[in-house]
Amino acid sequence: MARPDFDILVVGGGSAGLTVSIAGRALGMRVAQVERYRMGGECLGTGCVPSKALLHAAALAHAAREAAEAGLVEADPAAPIDFGRAMAHVQAAIETIAPHDSAQAQGRRGIKVFDAHATLLGGGRVQVGAQTVTARHIVLCTGSRPRIPDVPGMDQLVYHTHETIFGLTHLPGQLAIIGGGPEGCELAQAFARLGSRVVLIQRNRRLLANDDEEASALIRTVLEREGVTVLTSALLKRVVPSDVHHARLLHVDVNGQEHTIEADAVLVAAGREPVVDGLGLDEAGVKVGPDGIVVDAYMRTTAPGIWACGDCVGPYRYTHAAETQGRQLVRNLLFPWKMRPIDLRGLPWATFTDPESAHVGLTEAAARSKYGKGAIRTVLLPLSEVDRAVCEGATDGFVKYTLRGQKLVGAQVVAPRAGELIQQLALLLHQRLPRHVLESAHVYPTYSYALHQANDRANYVRRSESRVWSFTLRVLRRFALGA
Amino acid sequence: MARPDFDILVVGGGSAGLTVSIAGRALGMRVAQVERYRMGGECLGTGCVPSKALLHAAALAHAAREAAEAGLVEADPAAPIDFGRAMAHVQAAIETIAPHDSAQAQGRRGIKVFDAHATLLGGGRVQVGAQTVTARHIVLCTGSRPRIPDVPGMDQLVYHTHETIFGLTHLPGQLAIIGGGPEGCELAQAFARLGSRVVLIQRNRRLLANDDEEASALIRTVLEREGVTVLTSALLKRVVPSDVHHARLLHVDVNGQEHTIEADAVLVAAGREPVVDGLGLDEAGVKVGPDGIVVDAYMRTTAPGIWACGDCVGPYRYTHAAETQGRQLVRNLLFPWKMRPIDLRGLPWATFTDPESAHVGLTEAAARSKYGKGAIRTVLLPLSEVDRAVCEGATDGFVKYTLRGQKLVGAQVVAPRAGELIQQLALLLHQRLPRHVLESAHVYPTYSYALHQANDRANYVRRSESRVWSFTLRVLRRFALGA
Repeated sequence: MARPDFDILVVGGGSAGLTVSIAGRALGMRVAQVERYRMGGECLGTGCVPSKALLHAAALAHAAREAAEAGLVEADPAAPIDFGRAMAHVQAAIETIAPHDSAQAQGRRGIKVFDAHATLLGGGRVQVGAQTVTARHIVLCTGSRPRIPDVPGMDQLVYHTHETIFGLTHLPGQLAIIGGGPEGCELAQAFARLGSRVVLIQRNRRLLANDDEEASALIRTVLEREGVTVLTSALLKRVVPSDVHHARLLHVDVNGQEHTIEADAVLVAAGREPVVDGLGLDEAGVKVGPDGIVVDAYMRTTAPGIWACGDCVGPYRYTHAAETQGRQLVRNLLFPWKMRPIDLRGLPWATFTDPESAHVGLTEAAARSKYGKGAIRTVLLPLSEVDRAVCEGATDGFVKYTLRGQKLVGAQVVAPRAGELIQQLALLLHQRLPRHVLESAHVYPTYSYALHQANDRANYVRRSESRVWSFTLRVLRRFALGA
Repeated sequence: MARPDFDILVVGGGSAGLTVSIAGRALGMRVAQVERYRMGGECLGTGCVPSKALLHAAALAHAAREAAEAGLVEADPAAPIDFGRAMAHVQAAIETIAPHDSAQAQGRRGIKVFDAHATLLGGGRVQVGAQTVTARHIVLCTGSRPRIPDVPGMDQLVYHTHETIFGLTHLPGQLAIIGGGPEGCELAQAFARLGSRVVLIQRNRRLLANDDEEASALIRTVLEREGVTVLTSALLKRVVPSDVHHARLLHVDVNGQEHTIEADAVLVAAGREPVVDGLGLDEAGVKVGPDGIVVDAYMRTTAPGIWACGDCVGPYRYTHAAETQGRQLVRNLLFPWKMRPIDLRGLPWATFTDPESAHVGLTEAAARSKYGKGAIRTVLLPLSEVDRAVCEGATDGFVKYTLRGQKLVGAQVVAPRAGELIQQLALLLHQRLPRHVLESAHVYPTYSYALHQANDRANYVRRSESRVWSFTLRVLRRFALGA
């Protein structure tokens, strides 16, 4: 066999593809990457980056209103907000970050980028646009796309997804959001703060269904307080596009009762589906399951020499999950005699509402069903007992530890900086450190100090319940103090 | 000898005293605490809590101005700020937190609190107000007070310290702050944002002299941009109180040139000195050094049965340092046959300006002088390359790692959430974890992701400089890829 054109050919230019191509290239491999649409993928152009930028603009407007309402600044709390400025900030953020992920930047790293569509031809050959390219390893990083609810009228409705919503030039007066996961909650808060009347329609009985129950309840309370109408256990039945004032009607079933929601814009944020069509996967022997491309623990597909990672695989569709998979994949590809399985057990995630909601490990419910109800206890420290939160008037939130005996098996944090706090707990779980390391010095008064406080509370609860501990203490006191 | 009245008598009701008394009591000991002024100490009443609350009010006012300036909200960027509201917020925060630290709360925990002055009488006896109390162990937690510069005119000047500044009812038009450490920098920013013209007078050649140089430079830039006049290498020569408009004149020598600063309020934030007077330390045989009460690694003073911790000891005068010492002290007191020395090597600290500046481990300069210039290298990741910071327009900042070989020996973070980020690095240093644990998944796009990015950069630099690595890679590629 002739020497292949490349060591690795990466299909897709999003987070997973960028990780694999850059890591592969850094390790000296000859790498090519195919992207038919836009480098940087969903995360940069239409996902994490624009949503965080919009949330920032909304937070700034919210702070201005808060300062006026509290009488701290002499201003009108109802002062108009310039939506165009908010959107300009979003575009500026994308444009600042884009060059890092561009084909030019990849070129400078020594990665050949094809602006084309890729189809697997089998035997290490890939149809890239008009040409055929050969590679020793093919890595599929084709990503995901929004899942569109299959209800009557949907095909006639003009709706937004994250792919188009950041192109809005006018603030929707009434915005209906279908889906109450991280994306739905974040954008509900952002648009409500910018002045839209928002209705959030969630199929599950609670928002943020992957987080602990308390987080779902609190984020709901916060959104409702900011004017968002939240419907849970709400099943979209049918939609009626309309030309009158561009209004749309959504018919939603909530516990058997039909609600009709009028909206002049609709955002679909109801989950994602893997992009697996038009790639020639079947012909190449790459099996696809309900969640996406089927891979083993080493990120190998069912076809030899073909790997996959990121959103087209799952189960977690996060940028950092894609990156973690991509890194392990490249290691496995380079050290085939010493492959290591991917371990996503300590993978944290966060929703960037204000307050943020972040999770790592098992939820309480998952822990109870895994280890038995009696084996699990939880500790909850409300932010009202955390001094920094009191100083900042930001006491909506908590730190919750789910413990199996003394061991931390999961944590949920809702706090203004929860996304940062969860990282220390993720390190603890990932490195299998004992919980008592949280007794080490935590800077006072940070939000992180709450992690330390909650740990003390867990110890205290344990001690006050333990007879062995009481007895040991009595002996100790007698010995040390003669008391 | 008769049974003493208490197992532990704690002198002082601040952070150190609260930690020792609560921990001692939780372990079943009979604990008394003497506080002559106010429970909660400096931290609650006049230190960390009010400064963080004032910074929050100032940040809110700043955000409102920023929103108006950017045209996001239709409002006047120069809208007046109500200083009374800001101060009301400060008092509310103190009042919310105070009950946790109160004599009543201590009483409910089973701790006897004396509202009195304490004097050591020797032999486990302490004069508490009018009575004599005996205790098996005495723990000195007397704290510290502001150090007042000894210059001509100072004794006639009416000036503020942190003990009085939060009682202000009117915003000073022109505020001079003596001291450019954490307290000086935080309050300079807070008052400038609330509308004062602030002059910050720092004796050292840079602000935040315990942090890395880059942090000093950046915090200076930020303060200057917000209108603060920063004088470094500035020696206060004399002060002239005046009655005309309540103005004060400060004569300052900057590199041999005399400057005259007019101010209608002066804040002294020029370091702290331990409270060691009037306690009968000499008579009881407790030695006092230039930094405070002399203790060994186990927190024992030079007199048997007398311990000390917190600000009256040093070297770090932080709430969380006092707490760390206090916890270790109680353990050592209860397990005298298994005492452990205090280890403050991984102790992080933070300055809560916006952006925050946080440090752990050695500074670059300290590392170079300890290990030799050539043994140390640094990696610096500017926040302009961190996506979340770009989304929030908060790119003033960086993550800096100081490395000895591959090992992290110190870190400096300047970022909006640096106080939280430093905690993960503190855990790493405290637990002596290898740096590569930072390769684990970090939620995207958090600020913590920058820690992960900076670690990648450190790896990349190492690889690109290493011939052994290049050779190993070449072999690996040949073996794995036949390339």
